[in-house]
Amino acid sequence: MDTAETLLPRVLEGHPRALGRAISWLENGHAGARQLMAGLWPRLGRARVVGITGPPGAGKSTLTDQLARALRAEGRRVGILAVDPTSPFSGGAILGDRIRMGRIAPDPGVFIRSMATRGALGGLARATQDAIDVLDAAGFDTILVETVGVGQDEVDVASCTHTCLVVLVPGLGDEIQAMKAGLMEVADCFVVNKADREGVDQLERDLESMKALDMPSGWDPPILRTVAATGEGIAGLLDRIEEHRAWLAAAGGMARKAQERARLRFEHLLAEEASRRAKAAAGSARVDALIRSIADHRLDPYAAVAELLDRP
Amino acid sequence: MDTAETLLPRVLEGHPRALGRAISWLENGHAGARQLMAGLWPRLGRARVVGITGPPGAGKSTLTDQLARALRAEGRRVGILAVDPTSPFSGGAILGDRIRMGRIAPDPGVFIRSMATRGALGGLARATQDAIDVLDAAGFDTILVETVGVGQDEVDVASCTHTCLVVLVPGLGDEIQAMKAGLMEVADCFVVNKADREGVDQLERDLESMKALDMPSGWDPPILRTVAATGEGIAGLLDRIEEHRAWLAAAGGMARKAQERARLRFEHLLAEEASRRAKAAAGSARVDALIRSIADHRLDPYAAVAELLDRP
Repeated sequence: MDTAETLLPRVLEGHPRALGRAISWLENGHAGARQLMAGLWPRLGRARVVGITGPPGAGKSTLTDQLARALRAEGRRVGILAVDPTSPFSGGAILGDRIRMGRIAPDPGVFIRSMATRGALGGLARATQDAIDVLDAAGFDTILVETVGVGQDEVDVASCTHTCLVVLVPGLGDEIQAMKAGLMEVADCFVVNKADREGVDQLERDLESMKALDMPSGWDPPILRTVAATGEGIAGLLDRIEEHRAWLAAAGGMARKAQERARLRFEHLLAEEASRRAKAAAGSARVDALIRSIADHRLDPYAAVAELLDRP
Repeated sequence: MDTAETLLPRVLEGHPRALGRAISWLENGHAGARQLMAGLWPRLGRARVVGITGPPGAGKSTLTDQLARALRAEGRRVGILAVDPTSPFSGGAILGDRIRMGRIAPDPGVFIRSMATRGALGGLARATQDAIDVLDAAGFDTILVETVGVGQDEVDVASCTHTCLVVLVPGLGDEIQAMKAGLMEVADCFVVNKADREGVDQLERDLESMKALDMPSGWDPPILRTVAATGEGIAGLLDRIEEHRAWLAAAGGMARKAQERARLRFEHLLAEEASRRAKAAAGSARVDALIRSIADHRLDPYAAVAELLDRP
């Protein structure tokens, strides 16, 4: 049985099984999780974290795999976290999928993990943050965080990356509308993928006019064309990611991002832990009774929560 | 200035401005929110709550508006809550959009509200639950809850409805894959919208094979075709929603749903309130200092949270 002491050195050396275990520990609130994180913490801050988000069907996974391949060709170690809030399954399945589909060859310089914790409040964003830290401490140069949805979890995850790519495809006019302010806000670069399809020019015009409404940050998010399936445009995209990183560093943005990320992590963990402690203090029988009294309309939820917190 | 005493009777009579104010109070944690909810609570449990979810571009808003129109023709009062986690704006804008687009005529029997709180943890699902209660207490017969995304918030919202429609369109193969287990789990009825497009048969076959993998609940989710833009299939869809409600009632599912919903509401509110109290006790200067020490890598987030909770 692993302890934080035995697991930590293997995580820092980047053993895939140790990385997987460490991420699971943090995901599930294992007894050794806090000590493990304390051991990782002084080693953090070296990795470049890139978010890849956008609507379903935009080709995010293929784009992510191509970015990973190009970074590997430069000799970099790459972590991929695939965040899917609609799936109940975390862990290795997605790696198997990607190997089977021939998109990623088994390679010790690439670590892939799916993040799909449902249940705990704020759990997915929190667990993804923890996983980024594990890979950062293990010395991965670049961490690609691919998110499937367009919900709050994804906005939270995206706002904690250094550079966030918003991936779109031509011909889906509604997608742009559905994207709204939230995703616009997090976009450091727009990727028009499947750019060999009709409608590319229209999509670019739409994006330009949306950009005009917004973006007081000083960084003007570029719009790039890619065809992820063939690798077209990937090298140019990597250049733009690097440009953004350099701009961030020069503009003091790295410190601002670190501050934002720290606040979000603190809020997530606090909600989880404060609520866990309150329930533990009350005992599960009392919690269940309070929930039943809400369901039976004897007590409203605000009153039930106040009762738990006022008389632990 | 309204107080809970002055607002409550007007909410119960269904005055649109009072409903809007009550929902905002609950959304923002107004000082009168708890008392208002306590006043609403004994009046709850009559409304039928229908969720409408699915990927962007599936035509959910148009379908929702058509359902509302058909229910109005039966003389029912209808509430519409449009949940969009990617938008920072709550409130009335969406009603304006819908009136401007001629989809909904101004009508005192329809109340529309967009729900888009970003920020507070679990805030969106919690605020939507509260809004459902307000409309239920105000005597709306049916509440249509339309969700834009496919993230955890939407799964939470969907799992608290009586009947959840998952809306899809032909020709978007990836959408189905992106939908995964989470949305499959919440589907009480599949709606194949824009069914005048090519690819309907393929989509239905895909759905049938996904259904075969799952669904031990005893209810076999039907697959219906609609063309929301013309109203085709809407009457049949309403029949199926009613069938599902009757099945739920007969199978004891209403009590199970009420229990699930009570648990989720309790968890959401507890996390919010426990964390609010912990921060209030510590003071914002101390909270800010802890967050800075995380950003500076002096303290890991677990240690920072433990420090706040251990020494308030």
